[in-house]
Amino acid sequence: MTGPGGPAGNSGLILEALVTTLDPGGAMHLAPMGPHLDPADPGRLLLLPYPDSDTGRNLRRHPEGVVHVTDDVLLLARAAVGPVEPPPPAFPARHVRGFVLAGACRYHEFRVTAVDDSGPRVRLAAEVVHAGRLRDFFGFNRAKHAVVEAAILATRTAFLPAEEIAAEYGRLAVLVAKTGGPAEKEAFALLEAHVEKAKASRQK
Amino acid sequence: MTGPGGPAGNSGLILEALVTTLDPGGAMHLAPMGPHLDPADPGRLLLLPYPDSDTGRNLRRHPEGVVHVTDDVLLLARAAVGPVEPPPPAFPARHVRGFVLAGACRYHEFRVTAVDDSGPRVRLAAEVVHAGRLRDFFGFNRAKHAVVEAAILATRTAFLPAEEIAAEYGRLAVLVAKTGGPAEKEAFALLEAHVEKAKASRQK
Repeated sequence: MTGPGGPAGNSGLILEALVTTLDPGGAMHLAPMGPHLDPADPGRLLLLPYPDSDTGRNLRRHPEGVVHVTDDVLLLARAAVGPVEPPPPAFPARHVRGFVLAGACRYHEFRVTAVDDSGPRVRLAAEVVHAGRLRDFFGFNRAKHAVVEAAILATRTAFLPAEEIAAEYGRLAVLVAKTGGPAEKEAFALLEAHVEKAKASRQK
Repeated sequence: MTGPGGPAGNSGLILEALVTTLDPGGAMHLAPMGPHLDPADPGRLLLLPYPDSDTGRNLRRHPEGVVHVTDDVLLLARAAVGPVEPPPPAFPARHVRGFVLAGACRYHEFRVTAVDDSGPRVRLAAEVVHAGRLRDFFGFNRAKHAVVEAAILATRTAFLPAEEIAAEYGRLAVLVAKTGGPAEKEAFALLEAHVEKAKASRQK
């Protein structure tokens, strides 16, 4: 489907993004995801949803959605550990049937053009049919990125050793305290609580 | 100079940025720096240069410069380990005497308004006199951020244990290989070489 030069190839970067798709009832479904993008070829995306994920199922049913670039790590953290209630503000996408997060920095409305499920993970090639900019991305901030790493770990409590997660959280906490603002601190505390809860429920 | 609500206060975020100042001969001097910014108050910056740094000295002589938001981790890595030769493309700033990096995402031309050297580190309060956008910041990418962390470590080889740096580089290398593109891989390799060289010269 895509060769080594395609979005999954050597020139592709993984964007830690928020993706919206349509659930079976036509409402917005929000999830964190890491699509592959090639900065030199912004018209294409490669999505690798877990086959048993809601996003994967939603895209099989309705192959359109929206990939968002955001620096809002509090929303990212909340989406990583469960459904965000109430859902964040959104408006209808313009060129696909789907939803755009109003608080995002930029967004890419996409349509799936090819499905490759020959490998262990489904690969969905998509074309970007519309892109928009809402606000600027802050830039490199160690605390924001520490929250991204913590959020990824928080989704892996079922199979990573609790000690490994705790050690990594200890390192990340220093960066959040030193370089973050209130939103980064709130996001990290939320993830810490989630990891603690997961650990306690495993010990039962 | 700035209270708890100012750019150094609880609401401030540290931006891992590139800063240009004027050297004694009036040429562009480029260095990585972590100014404090409050996203809710984009008209102000707080700079904390090391007193013995070229940037600190340059700003005492000519209190104007440009803070850049960039996602170009190769340039960031090169600037972290020494002078970038040849200097990257730049154009004259519009409202201060200084230079804007042509490859940056956004930039903030600033003028220092107050100096506080009562603490161990000089605190320079600055006002942003002009801001511009050149291109979009990619967004969250684990490899780019791993390079930022590696670059910060690379500037600390003189006082951090070599084993600690090696362990952290091992962790970061995985992220770069998994989620980065060619520029991220080149930047990381350059930093690895720098750290190895620093280690070898210490062992002599």
